[in-house]
Amino acid sequence: MPDTLTLSLDAMGGDAGPEMVLPAAAIAAERHPRANFLLFGDEKRLTPLLALQPKLKPRAVIHHCDVAIAMHDKPSQALRQGRGKSSMWLAIDAVKRGEAHAAVSAGNTGALMAMSRFILKMLPGIERPALAAQWPTLKGQSVVLDLGASIGADARQLLEFAVMGEAMASCLFGLKQPSVGLLNVGVEEIKGLEEVKKAGRLLRELKLPIHYHGFVEGDDIGKGTVDVVVTEGFTGNIAVKTAEGTARMIATLMKDAMTASLLSKIGAALAFGAFRTIKARLDPSKLNGGLMLGLNGVVVKAHGGSDALGYATAIDVAVQMVKNGLTAKIAADVEEVNALLAQEPGMAAAIPPGDGA
Amino acid sequence: MPDTLTLSLDAMGGDAGPEMVLPAAAIAAERHPRANFLLFGDEKRLTPLLALQPKLKPRAVIHHCDVAIAMHDKPSQALRQGRGKSSMWLAIDAVKRGEAHAAVSAGNTGALMAMSRFILKMLPGIERPALAAQWPTLKGQSVVLDLGASIGADARQLLEFAVMGEAMASCLFGLKQPSVGLLNVGVEEIKGLEEVKKAGRLLRELKLPIHYHGFVEGDDIGKGTVDVVVTEGFTGNIAVKTAEGTARMIATLMKDAMTASLLSKIGAALAFGAFRTIKARLDPSKLNGGLMLGLNGVVVKAHGGSDALGYATAIDVAVQMVKNGLTAKIAADVEEVNALLAQEPGMAAAIPPGDGA
Repeated sequence: MPDTLTLSLDAMGGDAGPEMVLPAAAIAAERHPRANFLLFGDEKRLTPLLALQPKLKPRAVIHHCDVAIAMHDKPSQALRQGRGKSSMWLAIDAVKRGEAHAAVSAGNTGALMAMSRFILKMLPGIERPALAAQWPTLKGQSVVLDLGASIGADARQLLEFAVMGEAMASCLFGLKQPSVGLLNVGVEEIKGLEEVKKAGRLLRELKLPIHYHGFVEGDDIGKGTVDVVVTEGFTGNIAVKTAEGTARMIATLMKDAMTASLLSKIGAALAFGAFRTIKARLDPSKLNGGLMLGLNGVVVKAHGGSDALGYATAIDVAVQMVKNGLTAKIAADVEEVNALLAQEPGMAAAIPPGDGA
Repeated sequence: MPDTLTLSLDAMGGDAGPEMVLPAAAIAAERHPRANFLLFGDEKRLTPLLALQPKLKPRAVIHHCDVAIAMHDKPSQALRQGRGKSSMWLAIDAVKRGEAHAAVSAGNTGALMAMSRFILKMLPGIERPALAAQWPTLKGQSVVLDLGASIGADARQLLEFAVMGEAMASCLFGLKQPSVGLLNVGVEEIKGLEEVKKAGRLLRELKLPIHYHGFVEGDDIGKGTVDVVVTEGFTGNIAVKTAEGTARMIATLMKDAMTASLLSKIGAALAFGAFRTIKARLDPSKLNGGLMLGLNGVVVKAHGGSDALGYATAIDVAVQMVKNGLTAKIAADVEEVNALLAQEPGMAAAIPPGDGA
């Protein structure tokens, strides 16, 4: 773990932009006394905002950029227009150049993934990145991946996702052996997609230093059956958005019902503390900070709609990952997987080489 | 629409079995005064239960069967052991033989799908069945399919699912032109799985009598953006179970929070009516009745955990489908699709023939 820690922030990213990122950096500066901050963005906007944060100011440097990636730019467009000069590009590039330990952005997810992959490259032996996030469960939190960094995954890629998600969960939750499950349509070994079944076989039979639980189903995510839920990006993206939609639907129904009569309003007021407890458990700002896994460097994606507290949580995630050596852990784990696969030619032959990109 | 309506019930299916199915049939008999019931199951158990339902009795006939399919039997095992003699088999077979207009079972889903397909066969031009269910949304309900009847679907199959889901929604909700969306990881046309994009192109460009909305994302399901959400079975199964898991997690957190202090208990008591309203909106017994679509006959799957009221709702669904001519509608729609595809050789060439099973 480095003595001091430098974080590069894309100060223009997110719906609220610099007016949210700078107060977030100030919160993070208090939480992490040895952290320094590189702020990438329009200096005319950043300078007066930084002046409002006396504790952050001595530990932050503004790097001016003319270009900001819009939230709805296409990744290809963002790469073209933002290459070498946008706040997002330069924040990631600071990690590449060794000037920062990790980058954080609340900007356009597709652009952030494309740029991160372009600038940092993948770790050796990993073909595709995965987007991983924390998911609230009845037991606490789990890590779920891939949430849409790519579409489809073969058995080897699912295995890589398992290794990467396990590394993230151990860095994030401080668990020694997080349990890992493969998302499937049933828990029996004969069910599901061919590649998921193959990945299950590999996870069971290879002597990986991973606590493989087996298949899990959609409702196991919310139960917290495992610490890490692995799936390919199409399904993962739809699962996470379906869950968000369900939670939002229930919250809306609840709000409508609670304000429908005087009695329910009084009840809601008395139960206010209880509602606050639930809200805190499901609060996206407490579970903020998705990770782009598989890259040669740490890049954290904060929610586009983050407030300062939420963005500060995403910075916490970046700090945790750097402190606990996420990138080195993933690199070592993947090397081990590949060595094991090489020792088991039968099993390696059963799956295609890692060239599915 | 037939003058009288005969429903065949698998009286042994479901966690609660005949003790739930017979009271359910009694409720349905009151709701549908022209309906008759064939009850398949162990006559020693059914006879005394039927004696308790004086209004049902004159309109119900018990057909004794020795075998009941267990809730966790594998489909292959169920087919082997239950063929020609189980309550599930005979209930479906009554539809095949023209003795009943529709079958209802709360039994083992996999077995019900396998037997239904085996006995009733697919409608001409449809390669694979789909399992469709009602989903609660902010606007009311939607139909979502496929929830796991098969794994993976090519563009033509997704098109068939769209046609079948649209027919179900129009029969169920009485809508003239239900809107149909394809579940994807983004709403832009360039995103997502190749087969989903192809299906989107077909739905946009063929002159189908379908109100095609476009791509929808996971959170659109709960919002009620469209009346029919189409996806392949792997993703659909995971989406529905993830949503169930999320709703259950929130309900548990809520219950815990509401009973955590005296104040919150009083609040919860005062807001009881409001909670009841929400519960009613999300109540599975009000949204009960999944359909096996694409078969040459109507088979309704009630939840395994149905109570009598829930099972009665599943019977309502069966009645609606028969009254509104679901099977004929699907057959006609699919014929139209195939005729349109034949007129557009370019487009037909872009997709594989319907042989993906």
